[in-house]
Amino acid sequence: MRLADFNNDDFDRGRPRLVEAAWRIVEGLLLNSWLPGSTWRVWLLRRFGANVGQGVVIKPHVRVKFPWRLRIGNHCWIGEGVWIDNLAEVSIGSNCCISQGAYLCTGSHRWDKETFDLETRPIVIEEQCWVGAMARVGPGVTIGEGAVLTMGSTATSSLNPGWVYCGNPALALKQRNTTTGQERHV
Amino acid sequence: MRLADFNNDDFDRGRPRLVEAAWRIVEGLLLNSWLPGSTWRVWLLRRFGANVGQGVVIKPHVRVKFPWRLRIGNHCWIGEGVWIDNLAEVSIGSNCCISQGAYLCTGSHRWDKETFDLETRPIVIEEQCWVGAMARVGPGVTIGEGAVLTMGSTATSSLNPGWVYCGNPALALKQRNTTTGQERHV
Amino acid sequence: MRLADFNNDDFDRGRPRLVEAAWRIVEGLLLNSWLPGSTWRVWLLRRFGANVGQGVVIKPHVRVKFPWRLRIGNHCWIGEGVWIDNLAEVSIGSNCCISQGAYLCTGSHRWDKETFDLETRPIVIEEQCWVGAMARVGPGVTIGEGAVLTMGSTATSSLNPGWVYCGNPALALKQRNTTTGQERHV
Repeated sequence: MRLADFNNDDFDRGRPRLVEAAWRIVEGLLLNSWLPGSTWRVWLLRRFGANVGQGVVIKPHVRVKFPWRLRIGNHCWIGEGVWIDNLAEVSIGSNCCISQGAYLCTGSHRWDKETFDLETRPIVIEEQCWVGAMARVGPGVTIGEGAVLTMGSTATSSLNPGWVYCGNPALALKQRNTTTGQERHV
Repeated sequence: MRLADFNNDDFDRGRPRLVEAAWRIVEGLLLNSWLPGSTWRVWLLRRFGANVGQGVVIKPHVRVKFPWRLRIGNHCWIGEGVWIDNLAEVSIGSNCCISQGAYLCTGSHRWDKETFDLETRPIVIEEQCWVGAMARVGPGVTIGEGAVLTMGSTATSSLNPGWVYCGNPALALKQRNTTTGQERHV
Repeated sequence: MRLADFNNDDFDRGRPRLVEAAWRIVEGLLLNSWLPGSTWRVWLLRRFGANVGQGVVIKPHVRVKFPWRLRIGNHCWIGEGVWIDNLAEVSIGSNCCISQGAYLCTGSHRWDKETFDLETRPIVIEEQCWVGAMARVGPGVTIGEGAVLTMGSTATSSLNPGWVYCGNPALALKQRNTTTGQERHV
């Protein structure tokens, strides 16, 4: 690859550069700070175009690349230090928990091309999912309804609804059981 | 799960909200800062109730959720960027090295219940352990005396004394050998 | 191990303590900040002894332990939040992409010795490599020309040229194919 030949002019950033620059300042000084409080974080994200539902909690040290490509349903939790690197749309259904330190990555590169072209693909997290602490989710991944990605695991392909995934790459470990209380603490 | 039904009123935070708020400020501005120096970090942690032994080194960018639930023995090292997320007690024996970027997680959720109840379990790290850089330790884990968790590995269950663990979930790789000098650099 | 007996007096830090202290301040306030801009970051690194080529992009939140032990070729990208923990030399060839959150670790400890001696070993990343987001590279690792380490993976031994590695420890997954465009999105 020859990174000098990389050309990203066709990438649609979704907002004028001035808006993006303003967001970088707001993110750097406020959203990503240690300052407590969730309501004002939700307000800031909405002001910059995020679609955020009711009852959403956003903890300190969170990073969001493009708020205008973020959709969060109702009653979600975005944990401390979560990094939503949404060059492409990230959509999080209602009643999801994205735990502390999780990383959602929508950008990859064509490693098979000399020009290492950027390739972005959306992430869809359906309702009632749990992305564990320090977990990583790759471009184009859909996390099916109710699926769980355990702490520190890396999802490089989509996860089936109602299953628990672990490892790097994350593999199906067992079905999530919401009735017995037997299966937990992975 | 229905996160609107989540109820954490029974969780004992261990200190009045005002003390916790003060700690968040101290942590955000000082403990977690880039400022060099270990002695004053130890002093701050003790002021907020941590039980910290002699000869302990605490590097910059460290986070501690509740200092009043932290116990560190003598001659331990807490590396740069370590995150001790101790909703429940974290106890670190003497002569332990917790390397840079490690994450100790004491909180989980009942994923089998609609109310997604918080469930906290203590972490015990016995003497002479080494938690490698960027390693993750889950709730309820005991790391047996002298065990090693390698860089970037994730311990979701307890580790036997004197063994070296690697992977996610971390599996026993080999015995730690403190005499031959053959086994190292994993 | 007895960390009270640890002795690091023989470790050559490469610069006087005053220079190192100055760098810590510059790194803490500037290099590692959210402030946008790459050119001035390259300039700072060079001022402190780094050998940085032409067309190098360095994103915000980057950490470098010792700039005087850093060599970066031409047209490289150092992503947001990359942590170059270079107690020993880190050498990055031209046309490499070190993605966001990656961690390059040159220091280990003799876990077989009571004195837990520090042992540092250089990292060599040859030309046209891609170290994925949140990937970890251990001491003494050479990443062969054109190799890829996928997101969140941990390289604890050297990677062969032209192969794609995944997991912890990272294992060879497939050959990188720069002609067909079939193999991507791991």
